[in-house]
Amino acid sequence: MPFSTMERWSFHPEDGRLAHDSGRFFSIEGLHVRTNFGWRRDWIQPIIVQPEIGFLGLIVREFDGVLHALVQAKAEPGNINAVQLSPTLQATRSNYTRVHNGAHVPFIEYFNGTRPHRPLVDVLQSEQGSWFLRKRNRNMVVEVFEDPPEHPNCRWLTLAQLRAMLRYDNVVNMDLRSVLACIPTRVEPDAVGRVLDGLSEGSFETRLLRSFVGAGTPVHNMNTLLSWISDVRTTREFVQRTRPLADIDRSGWIRRDDGIEHEDKKYFSIFGVSVTTGHREVRSWMQPLLSPANHGMLALLVKEIDGTLHALVHLRTEAGGHDVAELAATVHCQPDNYTDVPEEHRPTYLDYVLDVPRTRIRYDAWHSEEGGRFYRNENRYMLVEVPEDFDDGGAPDHRWMTFGQITDLLAHSHYVNIQLRSLVACASAVYNRATA
Amino acid sequence: MPFSTMERWSFHPEDGRLAHDSGRFFSIEGLHVRTNFGWRRDWIQPIIVQPEIGFLGLIVREFDGVLHALVQAKAEPGNINAVQLSPTLQATRSNYTRVHNGAHVPFIEYFNGTRPHRPLVDVLQSEQGSWFLRKRNRNMVVEVFEDPPEHPNCRWLTLAQLRAMLRYDNVVNMDLRSVLACIPTRVEPDAVGRVLDGLSEGSFETRLLRSFVGAGTPVHNMNTLLSWISDVRTTREFVQRTRPLADIDRSGWIRRDDGIEHEDKKYFSIFGVSVTTGHREVRSWMQPLLSPANHGMLALLVKEIDGTLHALVHLRTEAGGHDVAELAATVHCQPDNYTDVPEEHRPTYLDYVLDVPRTRIRYDAWHSEEGGRFYRNENRYMLVEVPEDFDDGGAPDHRWMTFGQITDLLAHSHYVNIQLRSLVACASAVYNRATA
Repeated sequence: MPFSTMERWSFHPEDGRLAHDSGRFFSIEGLHVRTNFGWRRDWIQPIIVQPEIGFLGLIVREFDGVLHALVQAKAEPGNINAVQLSPTLQATRSNYTRVHNGAHVPFIEYFNGTRPHRPLVDVLQSEQGSWFLRKRNRNMVVEVFEDPPEHPNCRWLTLAQLRAMLRYDNVVNMDLRSVLACIPTRVEPDAVGRVLDGLSEGSFETRLLRSFVGAGTPVHNMNTLLSWISDVRTTREFVQRTRPLADIDRSGWIRRDDGIEHEDKKYFSIFGVSVTTGHREVRSWMQPLLSPANHGMLALLVKEIDGTLHALVHLRTEAGGHDVAELAATVHCQPDNYTDVPEEHRPTYLDYVLDVPRTRIRYDAWHSEEGGRFYRNENRYMLVEVPEDFDDGGAPDHRWMTFGQITDLLAHSHYVNIQLRSLVACASAVYNRATA
Repeated sequence: MPFSTMERWSFHPEDGRLAHDSGRFFSIEGLHVRTNFGWRRDWIQPIIVQPEIGFLGLIVREFDGVLHALVQAKAEPGNINAVQLSPTLQATRSNYTRVHNGAHVPFIEYFNGTRPHRPLVDVLQSEQGSWFLRKRNRNMVVEVFEDPPEHPNCRWLTLAQLRAMLRYDNVVNMDLRSVLACIPTRVEPDAVGRVLDGLSEGSFETRLLRSFVGAGTPVHNMNTLLSWISDVRTTREFVQRTRPLADIDRSGWIRRDDGIEHEDKKYFSIFGVSVTTGHREVRSWMQPLLSPANHGMLALLVKEIDGTLHALVHLRTEAGGHDVAELAATVHCQPDNYTDVPEEHRPTYLDYVLDVPRTRIRYDAWHSEEGGRFYRNENRYMLVEVPEDFDDGGAPDHRWMTFGQITDLLAHSHYVNIQLRSLVACASAVYNRATA
């Protein structure tokens, strides 16, 4: 629907940002980025500004010695399949902190200290830096020791069942993938022990699980990896400055009442939608959604090095990132954005992945991003095993890390971006075939 | 000197920021802060904006089994004592990355990979959030295995000698204190072993060292502490937005050609200075400096809990902070800013520290902050040991942590603020009395 007919949303008289009249939720603003590297070094783009930190909470409990997660079936306006599996609780800070003033948020008492719980994971993690300015969500997993109340949209699944769901397209939503990735594999010592004792050392699943639990020797120790990250963050020039929305015109963006899009039909567009649902406190509302112009390719190359499986991670800078660079998939791009880009600026390994033989593919599924902000944004997530003699010279911004090292960094904020977190969850779906 | 006579500095025609004509160095801008807690919840203030990440590098080397640091005697325009001890190398990114285009930066080859080195510390750390907008510096310690060239301003000191210097006022500069704090105590196992074996368990120095090396049991495990930090960062509303400089007038700031100051004579002022030196590539220049209105009090309470020494840290939010809150000293304020503030908004434990008996004081010295940006900003740094029955109820934003836990978090960015890093370095000067 046209912006001019969106109830309660309007363009701010001072800087032109598209915002809700309450000042809450989020706004669409201009962002000027200046860098000293890459193909484009100076541009202005529209971006979603949402300073409030949201809350993604998963309740887990042991039944008969097996860890189960309480998963919610949740609808979002931009979802593919309408309903996807999500964490037990997705809440804004307003829901979380002012529970006594508003409607009851189911299960909130297991996260705010009212009911007994043990925190397994509690960390702020960034979301899509190309589309959000410094957006973070709190990823939290709590173990409870009593039965929470039943809820019609929630079911208990074992972690193995939940991981098995990741083998299907568009079933597990982005928020749940992110939370799953943050759970250290070592929290399930029994299952891990069974696998490592009982199965052939040589299967991909077993080698992957060994990499997750820190068996074997990484090619780089953690001090060296942290030093590499600090070096890249220091030497890359990266200046972000919010701008009046009208300034995006200078970089080829077209603003019309029915939407904002780029003149090359690349990147993404933004438009208004009207939403009606029977399942929320508010049953209908209007909001802008961001719709990427084409699908993304998120591929992680993995390789056995001296008997330990490693993943090739990329230190990637994104326009709205909270820090200069975060660890990302080996290949992370919307391939169609690069059709007219000079050969030397095509993403490293993109052409390799596009043509990779099927026998090297260890995981391949389509998942969609947060349906509350993005309209049907579907991306291809792949794990590709390359041979030990694979040539990885000449890629200075990539490093081999074990899955255990990536998981260790997930205890802290802003090391691992949202798409790589999804791939870590997908990888757990692969080793899961061995443990389940 | 008046702003209007500062060569190469001017007020930007669009948003009024005070900036260098080259667009480099830093600028003075307006910052709007909105929060949902504390005494002031909505204000606009001047702030130093310096997106470029600087470089603080310390070279260490073992001679006869003892670790030595190569320390520089360095002058800065705002320094008390003119010359203070600083890291081997203090450089801007421009120095660091474009060494071949400009003058040679002494010792740079030990940090950029040209000469062999082993990274011991390499982490981006925040600086004064009340005065800088999201400013970070790269704190780096490298061990070298050959003799670097001699330099007239540099000398080798043992870490013990360097720590001993911290017992004197205004000798070790802020940058060197920050880098020192990031060196894990366990890198000197021999000295530690000697102390822990040989000395009385009861002395304060020994108990402090035990807390640094992780002996004993912390009252909170790391998962619980990280969960507390995530909780505070999520529930505190904290929105930063840069504004035209003229908007600071709305919050009581007065802009004149000879400086910017607050109508209450509180907080700080900003004025221009002309600098002449014989020791730099550029021998004279003009620049703005920020001058705090009064001295600061940085006090860390420490207490023995079940046989392990803990420090009482505060999760403190600062206007220009990179994240919502960082760990800070128990008391961190400019006391004179609070003379007319309602009793309930006076900083917790400030009055206790101002009246504390001398017998409880374990460390007490004056140190100054970065003389390249701040004019003679001297602060009182104290360690105060409180009895085991000390009443610490009713301070929800404080927690007891061991020095080992604080040091572990120093491996990552944005957990420990610059003043608490100074206090960690000061604490190492105290246990140093036992090891030296």
